[in-house]
Amino acid sequence: MKVLVVNGANLGLLGKREPTIYGCETLEQVCAETRDFAQSKGVEVTFFQSDIEGELVAIIGGAVGVYDGIVINPAAYTHSSVALRDAIAACGLPTVEVHLSNTHKRESFRHHSLTAAVCTGQIMGFGSNGYRLAIQALVSSIEHDEKKWS
Amino acid sequence: MKVLVVNGANLGLLGKREPTIYGCETLEQVCAETRDFAQSKGVEVTFFQSDIEGELVAIIGGAVGVYDGIVINPAAYTHSSVALRDAIAACGLPTVEVHLSNTHKRESFRHHSLTAAVCTGQIMGFGSNGYRLAIQALVSSIEHDEKKWS
Amino acid sequence: MKVLVVNGANLGLLGKREPTIYGCETLEQVCAETRDFAQSKGVEVTFFQSDIEGELVAIIGGAVGVYDGIVINPAAYTHSSVALRDAIAACGLPTVEVHLSNTHKRESFRHHSLTAAVCTGQIMGFGSNGYRLAIQALVSSIEHDEKKWS
Amino acid sequence: MKVLVVNGANLGLLGKREPTIYGCETLEQVCAETRDFAQSKGVEVTFFQSDIEGELVAIIGGAVGVYDGIVINPAAYTHSSVALRDAIAACGLPTVEVHLSNTHKRESFRHHSLTAAVCTGQIMGFGSNGYRLAIQALVSSIEHDEKKWS
Amino acid sequence: MKVLVVNGANLGLLGKREPTIYGCETLEQVCAETRDFAQSKGVEVTFFQSDIEGELVAIIGGAVGVYDGIVINPAAYTHSSVALRDAIAACGLPTVEVHLSNTHKRESFRHHSLTAAVCTGQIMGFGSNGYRLAIQALVSSIEHDEKKWS
Amino acid sequence: MKVLVVNGANLGLLGKREPTIYGCETLEQVCAETRDFAQSKGVEVTFFQSDIEGELVAIIGGAVGVYDGIVINPAAYTHSSVALRDAIAACGLPTVEVHLSNTHKRESFRHHSLTAAVCTGQIMGFGSNGYRLAIQALVSSIEHDEKKWS
Amino acid sequence: MKVLVVNGANLGLLGKREPTIYGCETLEQVCAETRDFAQSKGVEVTFFQSDIEGELVAIIGGAVGVYDGIVINPAAYTHSSVALRDAIAACGLPTVEVHLSNTHKRESFRHHSLTAAVCTGQIMGFGSNGYRLAIQALVSSIEHDEKKWS
Amino acid sequence: MKVLVVNGANLGLLGKREPTIYGCETLEQVCAETRDFAQSKGVEVTFFQSDIEGELVAIIGGAVGVYDGIVINPAAYTHSSVALRDAIAACGLPTVEVHLSNTHKRESFRHHSLTAAVCTGQIMGFGSNGYRLAIQALVSSIEHDEKKWS
Amino acid sequence: MKVLVVNGANLGLLGKREPTIYGCETLEQVCAETRDFAQSKGVEVTFFQSDIEGELVAIIGGAVGVYDGIVINPAAYTHSSVALRDAIAACGLPTVEVHLSNTHKRESFRHHSLTAAVCTGQIMGFGSNGYRLAIQALVSSIEHDEKKWS
Amino acid sequence: MKVLVVNGANLGLLGKREPTIYGCETLEQVCAETRDFAQSKGVEVTFFQSDIEGELVAIIGGAVGVYDGIVINPAAYTHSSVALRDAIAACGLPTVEVHLSNTHKRESFRHHSLTAAVCTGQIMGFGSNGYRLAIQALVSSIEHDEKKWS
Amino acid sequence: MKVLVVNGANLGLLGKREPTIYGCETLEQVCAETRDFAQSKGVEVTFFQSDIEGELVAIIGGAVGVYDGIVINPAAYTHSSVALRDAIAACGLPTVEVHLSNTHKRESFRHHSLTAAVCTGQIMGFGSNGYRLAIQALVSSIEHDEKKWS
Amino acid sequence: MKVLVVNGANLGLLGKREPTIYGCETLEQVCAETRDFAQSKGVEVTFFQSDIEGELVAIIGGAVGVYDGIVINPAAYTHSSVALRDAIAACGLPTVEVHLSNTHKRESFRHHSLTAAVCTGQIMGFGSNGYRLAIQALVSSIEHDEKKWS
Repeated sequence: MKVLVVNGANLGLLGKREPTIYGCETLEQVCAETRDFAQSKGVEVTFFQSDIEGELVAIIGGAVGVYDGIVINPAAYTHSSVALRDAIAACGLPTVEVHLSNTHKRESFRHHSLTAAVCTGQIMGFGSNGYRLAIQALVSSIEHDEKKWS
Repeated sequence: MKVLVVNGANLGLLGKREPTIYGCETLEQVCAETRDFAQSKGVEVTFFQSDIEGELVAIIGGAVGVYDGIVINPAAYTHSSVALRDAIAACGLPTVEVHLSNTHKRESFRHHSLTAAVCTGQIMGFGSNGYRLAIQALVSSIEHDEKKWS
Repeated sequence: MKVLVVNGANLGLLGKREPTIYGCETLEQVCAETRDFAQSKGVEVTFFQSDIEGELVAIIGGAVGVYDGIVINPAAYTHSSVALRDAIAACGLPTVEVHLSNTHKRESFRHHSLTAAVCTGQIMGFGSNGYRLAIQALVSSIEHDEKKWS
Repeated sequence: MKVLVVNGANLGLLGKREPTIYGCETLEQVCAETRDFAQSKGVEVTFFQSDIEGELVAIIGGAVGVYDGIVINPAAYTHSSVALRDAIAACGLPTVEVHLSNTHKRESFRHHSLTAAVCTGQIMGFGSNGYRLAIQALVSSIEHDEKKWS
Repeated sequence: MKVLVVNGANLGLLGKREPTIYGCETLEQVCAETRDFAQSKGVEVTFFQSDIEGELVAIIGGAVGVYDGIVINPAAYTHSSVALRDAIAACGLPTVEVHLSNTHKRESFRHHSLTAAVCTGQIMGFGSNGYRLAIQALVSSIEHDEKKWS
Repeated sequence: MKVLVVNGANLGLLGKREPTIYGCETLEQVCAETRDFAQSKGVEVTFFQSDIEGELVAIIGGAVGVYDGIVINPAAYTHSSVALRDAIAACGLPTVEVHLSNTHKRESFRHHSLTAAVCTGQIMGFGSNGYRLAIQALVSSIEHDEKKWS
Repeated sequence: MKVLVVNGANLGLLGKREPTIYGCETLEQVCAETRDFAQSKGVEVTFFQSDIEGELVAIIGGAVGVYDGIVINPAAYTHSSVALRDAIAACGLPTVEVHLSNTHKRESFRHHSLTAAVCTGQIMGFGSNGYRLAIQALVSSIEHDEKKWS
Repeated sequence: MKVLVVNGANLGLLGKREPTIYGCETLEQVCAETRDFAQSKGVEVTFFQSDIEGELVAIIGGAVGVYDGIVINPAAYTHSSVALRDAIAACGLPTVEVHLSNTHKRESFRHHSLTAAVCTGQIMGFGSNGYRLAIQALVSSIEHDEKKWS
Repeated sequence: MKVLVVNGANLGLLGKREPTIYGCETLEQVCAETRDFAQSKGVEVTFFQSDIEGELVAIIGGAVGVYDGIVINPAAYTHSSVALRDAIAACGLPTVEVHLSNTHKRESFRHHSLTAAVCTGQIMGFGSNGYRLAIQALVSSIEHDEKKWS
Repeated sequence: MKVLVVNGANLGLLGKREPTIYGCETLEQVCAETRDFAQSKGVEVTFFQSDIEGELVAIIGGAVGVYDGIVINPAAYTHSSVALRDAIAACGLPTVEVHLSNTHKRESFRHHSLTAAVCTGQIMGFGSNGYRLAIQALVSSIEHDEKKWS
Repeated sequence: MKVLVVNGANLGLLGKREPTIYGCETLEQVCAETRDFAQSKGVEVTFFQSDIEGELVAIIGGAVGVYDGIVINPAAYTHSSVALRDAIAACGLPTVEVHLSNTHKRESFRHHSLTAAVCTGQIMGFGSNGYRLAIQALVSSIEHDEKKWS
Repeated sequence: MKVLVVNGANLGLLGKREPTIYGCETLEQVCAETRDFAQSKGVEVTFFQSDIEGELVAIIGGAVGVYDGIVINPAAYTHSSVALRDAIAACGLPTVEVHLSNTHKRESFRHHSLTAAVCTGQIMGFGSNGYRLAIQALVSSIEHDEKKWS
């Protein structure tokens, strides 16, 4: 099973940026932990990060036939990008939306997600652990509950 | 570690009610699976379900000193209950909000959660698997990432 | 044919409460008249009243397999209860929403019904006669117009 | 007792138009059934249909002194016609608003009725049976419950 | 003079819950102080607390003929309960709404009270002293200013 | 100078309809008084009343080259008719909007006028006197204040 | 008959300020013309202008028993002053609201009047002629149509 | 192929009315040009214009079985007519909505079309050329792209 | 202890103005009663009334170092004055907002207070008794509950 | 005549993506058909597609002096891009907005176009035929109707 | 060059009031610094401060012919005063709006300025330095960039 | 001191685009003037312009440790970019937002800035002079007023 993990705007700054909100791990560390966890579940993960909305759109547009599912943290684009919503809907792969922080605790414009409605589900508020939970959730969704947790 | 799992209005009908939305497992089956998973993580779970908002408020009010965390699926009360929000904020325990369905795919009044802002995080759209993911997320939150996933 | 007649918050005060709005019959009198009418149509009615939203939810949740249809006056919960909406949708029985007063003549927050969209239809403004009209409407709906009015 | 039954825009197409929403009876059939039912209650009914808002206004303006009450299905004008609201308020006759479909199940702009607040009551969701229920409701309203259902 | 003092959701936790917002007195202590003050004014008080909206509705519905007035802190139900509003309006007793905190300093959904419009008046922001001020206000209202403050 | 006086929906009922709001003069009496006043100012008036929005649109469309100005009481269409607004804007004649009642004292949907923005001015709240004030205002507007009041 | 004519903020600049909107007569000229017209109708007028909302409030508060009616152009305070609304309602004198320009042609915040609902009526869009029309309207209102136009 | 071309309120004034917005061709000239173009495509067109909403509703209601498609410029009724929307939906013919001007450049109430959602498509901003484009679009839609442009 | 009692717009008319809303005591009588009550509590009160928003702002700006607390009835300025809100926040003294009437029973624009959020608390609906309750509340707040009610 | 045809986010997936909404032609096929049609009208077309908003902005910024007009399908950026609106307004070339689907039939956030107000006109709902209609409309607009359809 | 510097409500308290928001300089100090800076630029400044909206209106109304430009910090009146907006528009002088704090960081009702749209520009968030920047900006605006910065 | 000057979408067209709004200087000229001014203040400036939101995000993300502050004109992205807001907040450098035009004079969607709340302050309406004012403001902010204006 192959999964694409997509990270949106400003996430390259992880660990350097507002640690009280986002924690102090760097994106590299988060990716490494996520890869380790994924491998333990038999999942091969590919990481992609961009600050550019259209590059996120393009990578998702090209995911069909290459990956079995997507984990995406659209970050700021969650709240403004119709293009990302359309890309996820168009590619048709099972997709899990992840947020490091609990966006409901923050400014009101972060309470609404344009992308969530076209994803399988959403996980937020658990820091970098959210990526591992998303991998777990995606595996279960894809395997149609064939392999239960062990 | 002891966790209280709270289920809100209409969830006693699980498996009998709109299976295309909520799946065909009964609440008893979901609880059994959740208990098995929790035990494998060293977590003792107690289940409580009520259709009555005030009984959910009371059980949460009494959870302090008895449980280490809460997993709650407030169901319909997610969108209307200030009382439940106040109860979760007052008890102060780490709490994970779970929804079986992805509420962002449904009526617009289900897109807003009154309770999410006082929870640690939110997991939605993964059916009954959401309870197991929530236990996992809660354990990690409580243990301050001491024990990593294995 | 068996019909459950459900009355919501404050309706136990009927006849004692604001008679210019609700009339001066007591709930007992309304039930008696409704039962007489129902019997003349070959319908057996069971009455349930509660001020507690969750008890209304529970009685509707248990109606499947016992009743052929529901007449409900959710009263105040019409405008605030997602739980009641979910219960009616979940039970799947033909349901008629009744209001004693014409809610469109009252405060603007009474102009919107959360429950109406999951009912078969709605009857309002005819005082206690509304229950008899609802029984009549329900019978016709259920019988698929097999027996016409005579 | 004489009752005016008013049908608004597009109702002349009944039976030919979107049968999954409005049923497959023609307006003529609905009128015939309504007349038969009304006669059994001792009520003489007159039917009027127009696609023109102003003609509906005029017929209601001329109803005082001729009819004892009005049954009206304003159809599309329910949601847009202040003129019709004013006409019903001005004529002062007891008036029952009827809708074939349950408008709360449809587009949100159909959830609000401009005319309902000046009517005695509202009946919706029971197809052509709604006209018979309305006649019944109107008779009871007018007779001040003198003659009870028998 | 007999007064019913009604406390809503989560108020049983008083003194244990968020002391920076609600102070550190328990509900029992608040009741004792209120009773002492009331007795000094010749008022007999009865206390009722419930987390269940419908039980609050029922106790108010039964207050007519037993009490001369009501002091109510609806807590969370202030902002969501049409049923409580209807109960207060229906019982017709002079009623004073009390809040421990100044709700205008908190989340915007706490700025609107559904119940205030059917009460005599509202007192907020003075902690447990609010109950004593409410007793004082109620006595003056009921006595039609016959006995002035001494 | 020739002026067209246009009256909208339900105004044919004047004097018969809700006299506490609209006074007890009939439209004929109002027209007669208005004609007398106009003649004393050297103005020839033509009256047109219709309940049909489109007929009001058509009469205004045909007014150019025949009349020097328009006095219009659009009644209910004030609040809903884009067509009437377009007709007044298209004909380009100086136009005065009149309302018998002060619409700001009534339902909130009557507080907004779609037509006022394309008229010269608006006069409301003076009963049938408003037509005479409108003639006076129109004369002054048209004569560019050449003849002052005497 | 004695009438108080009140002019609000910035009207002292009349004739100097934006002549394309407000005309080129000064306030003094407008007052002189209004006085002449009023005298011809047997009305004694007193003028008051202030840029200070509270002074407008005070002059209206002191008008009872001194004047028979008020003509007011609240200018900018039309759209923001609850105090002026309260003053007009409190004094209880027949009051006519005047605007030089047609406020419906301008910014949307000028489309709503806080004061109009407590006035007898409103006249707008006729420049300084509006004051004379208002005197005329006020006289007719006060004299209960005893003296007709001549 | 037979196409009905429907023109709404005020369009009879075309060429006489606000030429900077609508151009200086009369409706007759526009119809003639449209007919010529249609004939060159083998399409027979019938024109209908009315200022009366209900007449537009009726002509559309009668179009089934007579025409193969409709081109409609509802003009002002675009923004206010639920009846026209229902008529188009009921008749079920492929329908193209045309506007002479680009309504997005005008007042905000012209930015929303009630009728567009039940049409095949919408063409705006190209003056009278829009009718020819609409005929072209309709032909292509109806012929299922059988005959391509030549 | 010294307390400043501030009264806003139109309150000088008390007793003369709308007695069904505000009672028939004059402001002088209310002040006298408030002073008597305050003296019995050992509080020296100074009264200030102005119809001018800016004078209310100035008096509050000058209160620091002179008074121990403020009782304010901002009247109409409650709903419109950011300046008053800023003045109360800037002076930093404990402040109690009082309203004679229950503003929640009145027009919707009176349901929101701009000033309440920067006051200690709010008391409304108890007529002139509200000032005495406010003095009492303020004393208790300032004395940190040192002296309890006796 | 030279025309730039700009396609926005996700349109590179055409034919692979949601064919029930967008049809099964690829972007290449659509471009080929559009080129053929354009050539038959003597128009040279250049195609540009990007998922990146800023690249669309840049290509339009560089179009002045190179092209005579623009056909643009901004896709998702229609509803979110102020930058694209500014680019079209800045370049000042005649521009036609095209949408494959009728956006009024879809989610409500697709009913508003930020870009339409700065375009010449808009064509939607005709699938890939829309590009050809847009070329046709653009040619006519540019040629000032010199060459009529033949 | 002569510039009027106008300061609105509560600014007389500067330096005494909430120093974490407004800094600890007094208004006198700010004025002195501003005057020194202005003199170095050859600008003569006059200062005016009032808590009374109408006095600010009047001083601006009298500024024409006396001053070459205005620097205004309307403080609280920024968000509520139509009268101030009208005064600035009426006087027609180049005007710069200044705020000490960045109002976008504060309550949402401070995010909108009624006055900014009629000013030349706006400067906020730089404390008392804002006045000096405003003088600089005003000088450059007035001198039409004749004298560049040196 | 080193300052990064960031220019957003379409600003590369400066001087070529809508000169009545933006002036006729090119971006190169504006940069040159800004550099000259900055050098006179001992500030070294680096310029960056991009039409691509994500490139603006990236340049700001990389500014920490390289620059002492940022001047940004986000242009269209001011109103739509959560990503830019997050980037500015994350980098934590003092940042001044500049707009050439006074956005409050333009379309209502330009009245709200998503980025202003995370900047130090905002300067708008002074054309290219705004950049120099921003440099000046930034220098003063950074130097903590150490060096006063000279």
